[in-house]
Amino acid sequence: MYVYADNAATTQVSRRAAEAMLPYFTEVYGNASSLHTPGQRAMEALQAAREAVAKAINADHKEIYFTGGGSEADNQAIISGAMMGARQGKKHIISTAFEHHAVLHTLDKLKKQGFEVTLLPVHENGVVTPEDVAAAIREDTALVTVMFVNNEIGTIQPIADIARVCHEKGVLMHTDAVQAVGHIPVDVKALDVDMLSMAAHKFHGPKGVGALYARKGIAVVNVIEGGQQERGKRGGTENIPGIVGMAAAIGEATEHLEDDMKYVTGLRERLIEELSKIPHSRLNGDREKRVPGTVNFCFEGIEGESLLLWLDAKGVAASSGSACTSGSLDPSHVLLALGLPHEVAHGSLRLSLSVYNTPEEIEHIIQAVPEVVDYLRGMSPVWDELERGERPHLI
Amino acid sequence: MYVYADNAATTQVSRRAAEAMLPYFTEVYGNASSLHTPGQRAMEALQAAREAVAKAINADHKEIYFTGGGSEADNQAIISGAMMGARQGKKHIISTAFEHHAVLHTLDKLKKQGFEVTLLPVHENGVVTPEDVAAAIREDTALVTVMFVNNEIGTIQPIADIARVCHEKGVLMHTDAVQAVGHIPVDVKALDVDMLSMAAHKFHGPKGVGALYARKGIAVVNVIEGGQQERGKRGGTENIPGIVGMAAAIGEATEHLEDDMKYVTGLRERLIEELSKIPHSRLNGDREKRVPGTVNFCFEGIEGESLLLWLDAKGVAASSGSACTSGSLDPSHVLLALGLPHEVAHGSLRLSLSVYNTPEEIEHIIQAVPEVVDYLRGMSPVWDELERGERPHLI
Repeated sequence: MYVYADNAATTQVSRRAAEAMLPYFTEVYGNASSLHTPGQRAMEALQAAREAVAKAINADHKEIYFTGGGSEADNQAIISGAMMGARQGKKHIISTAFEHHAVLHTLDKLKKQGFEVTLLPVHENGVVTPEDVAAAIREDTALVTVMFVNNEIGTIQPIADIARVCHEKGVLMHTDAVQAVGHIPVDVKALDVDMLSMAAHKFHGPKGVGALYARKGIAVVNVIEGGQQERGKRGGTENIPGIVGMAAAIGEATEHLEDDMKYVTGLRERLIEELSKIPHSRLNGDREKRVPGTVNFCFEGIEGESLLLWLDAKGVAASSGSACTSGSLDPSHVLLALGLPHEVAHGSLRLSLSVYNTPEEIEHIIQAVPEVVDYLRGMSPVWDELERGERPHLI
Repeated sequence: MYVYADNAATTQVSRRAAEAMLPYFTEVYGNASSLHTPGQRAMEALQAAREAVAKAINADHKEIYFTGGGSEADNQAIISGAMMGARQGKKHIISTAFEHHAVLHTLDKLKKQGFEVTLLPVHENGVVTPEDVAAAIREDTALVTVMFVNNEIGTIQPIADIARVCHEKGVLMHTDAVQAVGHIPVDVKALDVDMLSMAAHKFHGPKGVGALYARKGIAVVNVIEGGQQERGKRGGTENIPGIVGMAAAIGEATEHLEDDMKYVTGLRERLIEELSKIPHSRLNGDREKRVPGTVNFCFEGIEGESLLLWLDAKGVAASSGSACTSGSLDPSHVLLALGLPHEVAHGSLRLSLSVYNTPEEIEHIIQAVPEVVDYLRGMSPVWDELERGERPHLI
């Protein structure tokens, strides 16, 4: 048995999304900007997809801008918010220390352009509070950007409360909802956010397509200059198959959301229950305020990369944190933001489930993880020292 | 019979490219940055695709950066070249008046950042000469960006000669080769360009994926900030199905390039021969220096949009110019750059063929176009005045 438990990195495209896409490669392949019939058929598909994506998050179709992915949407949202602020002389942005690099690196770019950035610390439970945000807001704050669901530990942030605090002080609010959309209810009107980013491949849609929600009144700035596509805000021939696949996937994910959440939460609870029995293990992030599918554990005395490779050999695809930084040898910036010591953060394991996982697969994971942890601890000089009491346990 | 003759706008995905993509949606769907087996299988596909794309243009695989399309690649190339220049105090960029808007609007953005831009005029035959470029180069010129093949009229620019002139004066050279790759031989070493952009959907690959070639030594600047994908130069989970499809399509296109060029040129010549017989018509762009598939005609006394709609009704999908600006009522900036008067530029027709077009389809076009031109002229008050000698013919 080989279990794919890395759905926060990316997901399998659903049969429905894949089948929805297929005709747009070889049959309805027109350019949606063309006046002729093949072009107009593409345009109709684009419009239907825009409406479907809008409906899934309770937005208007005019508020949806398709992008080449979640990172691009994050870049575009943050730059747009920054530029709107700059026009009023506001050049301060608030975010958090555990955002995705699509956010953090965009903020770094803006810093070079004279913006000042405050990164809020994250509480040990992996949650940022509205009070933290309120305290950081200044006269010159243009934008607050806080992720909806953390990609490594799965904790849910109180976005509606944070947005309220922002709007009371006239500050724009963006949320990177890449790990939220399709997994928990996302209603932009109830949340009252100004901008929200999403990525199709995180909810069984295709890679290479995402969307930015920007409410009416937001002056969206191009990340990609070019033709008049996406109301002039994103140059490049529209990726109709990808967009159609995204719409199909978001429709499918939101249709059965409540049932799927219950099912996946059940699998997750079983995982937490059993993996918590491993001595000197720690569940990272709040026990309750979390997305159904994602758990993140640290196991003392273990190095994350070895854990992954051995789990892979035992038939479990997992990750130590974000796939986007897996080339890096540094411990996760997310776990460090939670206050974990380097040596603990190094031994992290993220298991992220989807509705495609079965109870049998969870049992397989539950068997594999303790075996691999035991094996690696048996070879670990650090664990040896811990066991002999030569260094104190940190977990 | 319905003939798709708008291949410069976009193309049908080839069977080979579509079949190559399919397994990567639902079977090999891992994140290429993940360490586990599904991730590594995705990484292997990515690497193989990178090598295939590199090989097709005689580049090294380390010189290929996948993007979300041709526009993004253009943006990235120009910004990268501009920033390299700026570090040496060079803030002048040379381009041409008939570039794609992905280039022109990026240059507009750079102008706001203090760059100075010279747009070279285009000769009446739709060709820019190396002499024009040489004369415009200044001490502070950072970058020259000239398109390889014009998207509206299909003329080929002398890119190798322009690159030589640039390099003699220590200036970087980029070419937007979106309409060239897969249609004519493109060898980055022979051309000796520093950067080159391409888009898969222009050569029977999928929409939503492109690539930037940047030779070793070019400091590529991110357009999209995020994770460490594409050697840190383009954030966002790699679009493996799209990239695999691009690689398959470029392989297929370059494999039979010579035969395909001969075949498509034959179809085009037949079109030119017959459509030139329409009175007061004009072939735009050089008679010889053109890509096999694209022709662009002006018909006096006719409005382009009506022509397209009537041709569509007669079973021909064509365009008046670029699909990317089809929402605009202004005449094509490309035709104006060639020196055509507004009233002539308004009556333009682009027919762009691919290897999928048949001789029978060409005959269908040859029958439909004169009929529609006649019909529209019969209803045109302008044509009436021309015929009665009340205004002079411009063609």
